[in-house]
Amino acid sequence: MGTSYTLAEVAKWVSGAVRGDASVRVSGVAGVEEAQPCDLTWLTDDRFRAALGASRAGAVLAGERLGAAPMPAILCAKPELAIVTILERFAPPTPRPPVGVHPTACVAPSARLGRDVAVGPWTIIGENAVIGDRSILHAQNFVGADCRIGHDCELWPGVVIRERCVLGDRVIVHPNTTIGSDGFGYIYAEGRHVKIPQIGNVVIEADVEIGANCSIDRAKFGSTCVSAGTKIDNLVQVAHNVKVGPGCILVAQCGIAGSARLGTGVVLGGKVGIKDHAVLGDGVQVSACSCVSKDIAAGARLMGIPAIDRDEWVRQRAGTRRVPQLADQIKALAERIDRLESAADD
Amino acid sequence: MGTSYTLAEVAKWVSGAVRGDASVRVSGVAGVEEAQPCDLTWLTDDRFRAALGASRAGAVLAGERLGAAPMPAILCAKPELAIVTILERFAPPTPRPPVGVHPTACVAPSARLGRDVAVGPWTIIGENAVIGDRSILHAQNFVGADCRIGHDCELWPGVVIRERCVLGDRVIVHPNTTIGSDGFGYIYAEGRHVKIPQIGNVVIEADVEIGANCSIDRAKFGSTCVSAGTKIDNLVQVAHNVKVGPGCILVAQCGIAGSARLGTGVVLGGKVGIKDHAVLGDGVQVSACSCVSKDIAAGARLMGIPAIDRDEWVRQRAGTRRVPQLADQIKALAERIDRLESAADD
Amino acid sequence: MGTSYTLAEVAKWVSGAVRGDASVRVSGVAGVEEAQPCDLTWLTDDRFRAALGASRAGAVLAGERLGAAPMPAILCAKPELAIVTILERFAPPTPRPPVGVHPTACVAPSARLGRDVAVGPWTIIGENAVIGDRSILHAQNFVGADCRIGHDCELWPGVVIRERCVLGDRVIVHPNTTIGSDGFGYIYAEGRHVKIPQIGNVVIEADVEIGANCSIDRAKFGSTCVSAGTKIDNLVQVAHNVKVGPGCILVAQCGIAGSARLGTGVVLGGKVGIKDHAVLGDGVQVSACSCVSKDIAAGARLMGIPAIDRDEWVRQRAGTRRVPQLADQIKALAERIDRLESAADD
Repeated sequence: MGTSYTLAEVAKWVSGAVRGDASVRVSGVAGVEEAQPCDLTWLTDDRFRAALGASRAGAVLAGERLGAAPMPAILCAKPELAIVTILERFAPPTPRPPVGVHPTACVAPSARLGRDVAVGPWTIIGENAVIGDRSILHAQNFVGADCRIGHDCELWPGVVIRERCVLGDRVIVHPNTTIGSDGFGYIYAEGRHVKIPQIGNVVIEADVEIGANCSIDRAKFGSTCVSAGTKIDNLVQVAHNVKVGPGCILVAQCGIAGSARLGTGVVLGGKVGIKDHAVLGDGVQVSACSCVSKDIAAGARLMGIPAIDRDEWVRQRAGTRRVPQLADQIKALAERIDRLESAADD
Repeated sequence: MGTSYTLAEVAKWVSGAVRGDASVRVSGVAGVEEAQPCDLTWLTDDRFRAALGASRAGAVLAGERLGAAPMPAILCAKPELAIVTILERFAPPTPRPPVGVHPTACVAPSARLGRDVAVGPWTIIGENAVIGDRSILHAQNFVGADCRIGHDCELWPGVVIRERCVLGDRVIVHPNTTIGSDGFGYIYAEGRHVKIPQIGNVVIEADVEIGANCSIDRAKFGSTCVSAGTKIDNLVQVAHNVKVGPGCILVAQCGIAGSARLGTGVVLGGKVGIKDHAVLGDGVQVSACSCVSKDIAAGARLMGIPAIDRDEWVRQRAGTRRVPQLADQIKALAERIDRLESAADD
Repeated sequence: MGTSYTLAEVAKWVSGAVRGDASVRVSGVAGVEEAQPCDLTWLTDDRFRAALGASRAGAVLAGERLGAAPMPAILCAKPELAIVTILERFAPPTPRPPVGVHPTACVAPSARLGRDVAVGPWTIIGENAVIGDRSILHAQNFVGADCRIGHDCELWPGVVIRERCVLGDRVIVHPNTTIGSDGFGYIYAEGRHVKIPQIGNVVIEADVEIGANCSIDRAKFGSTCVSAGTKIDNLVQVAHNVKVGPGCILVAQCGIAGSARLGTGVVLGGKVGIKDHAVLGDGVQVSACSCVSKDIAAGARLMGIPAIDRDEWVRQRAGTRRVPQLADQIKALAERIDRLESAADD
C-alpha cells in the first residue's frame, strides 16, 4: 500500500466531487472503525453513520447527500460501485503464473489450449480438454478429459474438475473445490446400497464464482447446472441434477439436495438447506440456518426449520415466547371460575 | 451418447418385457421431464406418474403393473435395479490412469503395490504403505506411511490419507477428502488449550464410498471406524473415535461428533448433527437439518433441534402454530367470566 | 504399540503414585470400554466411573481421590494433563519429510527459508515468501507470494495459503484447508453482482490449529484475524474481515459470517452459525447447531435458532411441549363456563 493519491485524483476515478481539502492524500481503504489518517473510508450504510463521527479516516467516500462529516469527502452518485473501482485501483497485483505451460504440468497431447493461457505447476489437463483464451490454472489443478473451460477463467490451486464438465467464460473457482464428483445415488437392493452410475456432468455458466472447498456433483444423467452470474460462497454443496438459476447468491455452507431447482436471483443465507426436488421461484430469499422442505413461490421470504414465510415465523416465534404467560392466564381464569362455582353452590 | 439400442436389446439386459414397438431405438436415459424421443425414461416413484403422460421420452422403464402410458415400455420386476444396469450400459467410459506408476509419482521404496495398480501423476505413497490389486490412485493423492489400501479401491484427485489408516476393498473416495487428520482434542490447562496427541488411526471397511471434501479424523487412540457398505456424501465430518455401523447413509454436510456410535443401517439426512458420545441404535433415521443430542433407541425416526420422535415433532409443531389462537380463546373466556362475575355482583 | 512399560515407569513420567502392583506392564492407552489388559485407561469424568468397574484395562490413571477400582491405578494431581504426557510417550512417531527441500518442490528464488525447514514433494512457495525455522510443509502445499509462515509450523498436504497471508509460530494446518481465498463480496448494480476486490489478507497468530477442509477468507481490506491459541476444527468457514479472539474453540462445521468479532475464549459448538457483523463478548459459549443473529454480552450461554440464553431456551422449549395441554385446559374451562352460564340463565 505504498503509493498515495490525492482526493482529487481518487474523485476523478469515480466521477465524484471533493468536498473539503482535495489535496489530502490517501494510500489505502479501510472500514470506518479501523481507518487511519492515511486511509479512505466510505459510508453506504446508515448503520455506520454514528461511527463516522469518531473515525480517524483521512477522507470518506459517500453518496451525494452526505451530511456533516469530520473529514474531507468524495461524493458520488453510486458510492457502492465507486468503492469497487477504488479498491481495484488500490489492490496490489494478484500473483499469477506466467502465460504458458509450466514445465511440470501434465497436459494431454489432445488437449487444446487457447491463446495466452497460463498453466501453473503440477496441473493436469486430460485428453481432449479445451481451455479458453487467457484462462489461468494456478497450480495443482486437475481438469479431467473432455472438459471445456471458457475464456478468462481462473482456477486456484487444488481445484478438481472431473471429466466432461463445462465452465463458461470468466468463471472463478477458489482453492480445493471439487466439480463433477459422482452424485450421491444408491438403490437399496438385496441388503446393500447399489451405486447408481452418475453418467451426467456439471455445467457452470459464464461469470459464476465458486468459493473454496465446495462440492458440485455431476448429474445422474444430463447436467447439474449453475446459471450465469451466480455467486457461490465456501463449503457449499450442490447435489446431482440441481439447477441453480442465474444471478443467485448462495452463502457459505449452504446445501442443495438432488434435483432441486432455484429460479433467477434466489438468495440463500449461510447454512441453508434445500430439500431434494424442491422448486424455488425467482427471487426467493431464505434466511441463514433455514431448511426449505417444499416448493416455494416466487418472491417469498422464508425462515425457519422447516422454512415458512418470514413474517409468519416471527409471529409464531412471538407465540412461543407467550406460552408461559398463557399458562399463568389459564390458571388465573380457573381460579375465577372456582370462585364463581363456589358462589353458585352456596 | 452416440450408440443407440432397440428396446428389445435393452429389455434383454434387464430380463424385462417390451410392451409396444420393440424396434424403437434409444440412445440415452433421462428424467421424465427432460427426456427427448431418443431417451429412455423410467417410473419407479408414483410422484412422477402424472408427468409421464406429458413426457416426450421415446420409451419408459417401469414395474410390471404399469398402467397406460403414451410410449412403449420395458416392464420388469425390479425397475430400480434395472435402471442401474441400463445406466452402466449407457455410461461413457470413466477416464482413469493406465496401470502402472506415473513417472512423476513419488512411491517410497518400501511401499508394496498389488497387481495392476494405477498410480497417476504427483501421487505420494509413503513408507511401508500397501496398495491392493487393481486399485486406482488418480492423481495428486497423498497416502501416508504404513497405510493399507485394499483391492479395487479408487482415490480421486486431491484425496489425502494420513499415516497408518486402513481402507478395505472397493472403497471409493472422492476429490479433496481428508482421512486421518488429527482429532479435535485439547485439555484446558494453565490458561491454554493443550493438544491431546491423536495417536490412533481411521479404519474404513469394504464397499464404503466417501464423497468430496469430507473430513474423517483419526482416533485419539484406537480407531475411528466406518463399517462395510456405508455411503457418505460430500462435506461430511466424522470426528475422532466415531464408530459408524454397516450400511449407513450419511447425507451431505452431516457432522458426527467425537466417540458417537451409529448402529447398522442408520440414515442421517443432510446437515444432521450428532452429539459426542451419542449412541444411535440400528435403523435410526434422522431428518435433514436435525441435531441429535442424546442416545436413541433402534428404529427411531427423529426430527428437530434437538431431535425428537418425528410424530411428536409434528404434534409439537402444530401446537406452536395454535398459540395465537389459544391466546384469543383465553381472552374470550376472560370476557365471559367478566360477565358472569358482573352478573354475580348484581 | 510394541514397547511396554511398568506402571512405576509411567507414574514417573507424570509425577504420579502407583496404587497396587507397580510392576504391571502396559503397552497402550484406551478408553474404559475398549481397553484390554495390556492397556492403561483413565478416569477424568465421573460419567465413566460405573464403566470402570467392568473395564478389562490393566491399569487406570486417575485423580488422587479415586475410590475403589478393580485394577492398579496411577494417581496424580492433574490426570487430564497426565494423559497428554502419556499419549505423547506412547505415540508412534509422525512421519514427516526430512529437513531440506524435496527436489520436486517449486520454491521461488526470492523466497527465504529458515533453518531446518522441511519442504515435501510438489510444494509451491511463491516469490518473497518467508518460512520460519523448523517449519514443515508436508507435500502438495501452495504458499503464495509474500506469505510469512512462522517458526515450527506444520502444513499438511493440500493446504493452500494465498498471497500475503501471515501465520505465527507453531501454527498447524490440516489437509486441504484453504487460507486467503477471496471474501464473498458483491455489489448488485446494473442487473448483476459486481465483485468487490478483496485486497486484504489473513493473519493467523501463534499456536493456532486449523482442521481439515476449512476455508478462511482474506479480508476485503485489512486482515481477517485468528488470534493466538485458538483451535479450529474441520470444515469451518471464517469469512472476510472476521476477528476471532485468542483461545477460542470453533467446533466442526461452524460458520462465521463477514466482519463478525469473537472475544477471548469464545466456544462455538459444532455447526454454529454467526451472523455478519455480530460481536460476541469474552467467554461466550454457543451450543451446537445454534445460530447467533445479534451482538452477545460477555459470558453468555446461548442456544437455539436464533440463539437465546440457554436457560430461557430450555424454558421456552418446555412451554412448546405444554401447548397441547393448555389447549385441553382451555377446553375444560370453557365447559365449566358453559355450565355457569346455563345456570345463570335458569
